[in-house]
Amino acid sequence: MIVTFVHVWVKPENIDEFIKACKANHYESVKEPGNLRFDLLQEEGDPSKFVLYEAYESEEAAKAHKDTLHYQTWRDTVANWMASPRKGIKHKILCPLDKLKW
Amino acid sequence: MIVTFVHVWVKPENIDEFIKACKANHYESVKEPGNLRFDLLQEEGDPSKFVLYEAYESEEAAKAHKDTLHYQTWRDTVANWMASPRKGIKHKILCPLDKLKW
Repeated sequence: MIVTFVHVWVKPENIDEFIKACKANHYESVKEPGNLRFDLLQEEGDPSKFVLYEAYESEEAAKAHKDTLHYQTWRDTVANWMASPRKGIKHKILCPLDKLKW
Repeated sequence: MIVTFVHVWVKPENIDEFIKACKANHYESVKEPGNLRFDLLQEEGDPSKFVLYEAYESEEAAKAHKDTLHYQTWRDTVANWMASPRKGIKHKILCPLDKLKW
């Protein structure tokens, strides 16, 4: 299992449409067979800063996400709304290790 | 619902015991009635950097966590193993909003 934090800094004037595009991506991503979590978070105190918390049961499942139409639509839709390039940071999951508990 | 990322930088010589203490905290924390997620993550490429991903159904539930014996035991146990002060960053959860989907 693998988690990626995707940190996104959004231009203030695009926040509302960014959230809308992320929600559409969320609702499709959680249907992917290898997806465990796909949380959309907005930082308290900085509404232009977001984190996508993406957990997949394998590297292959995480890579397959990149091949989906909903991911590619999201990527292209939000590209010009970012104030700076997004940053993905991969993590190993130590707990929980039982998928059923997720 | 609220999420806190707790970023922790651990002294290299204390990594193994830090993980052990965090796992003990994890297994008790997920039993709390207001807890939604309590993930322990280790950064790829930097095994001394950890993130605790803590989701609670309310501010009150998040505060109640601080009153538990398992939290206080963790806090006191790991205090001297940190290479620098831990940093908690609060986030608003935009998706998922249905607790049942967590």
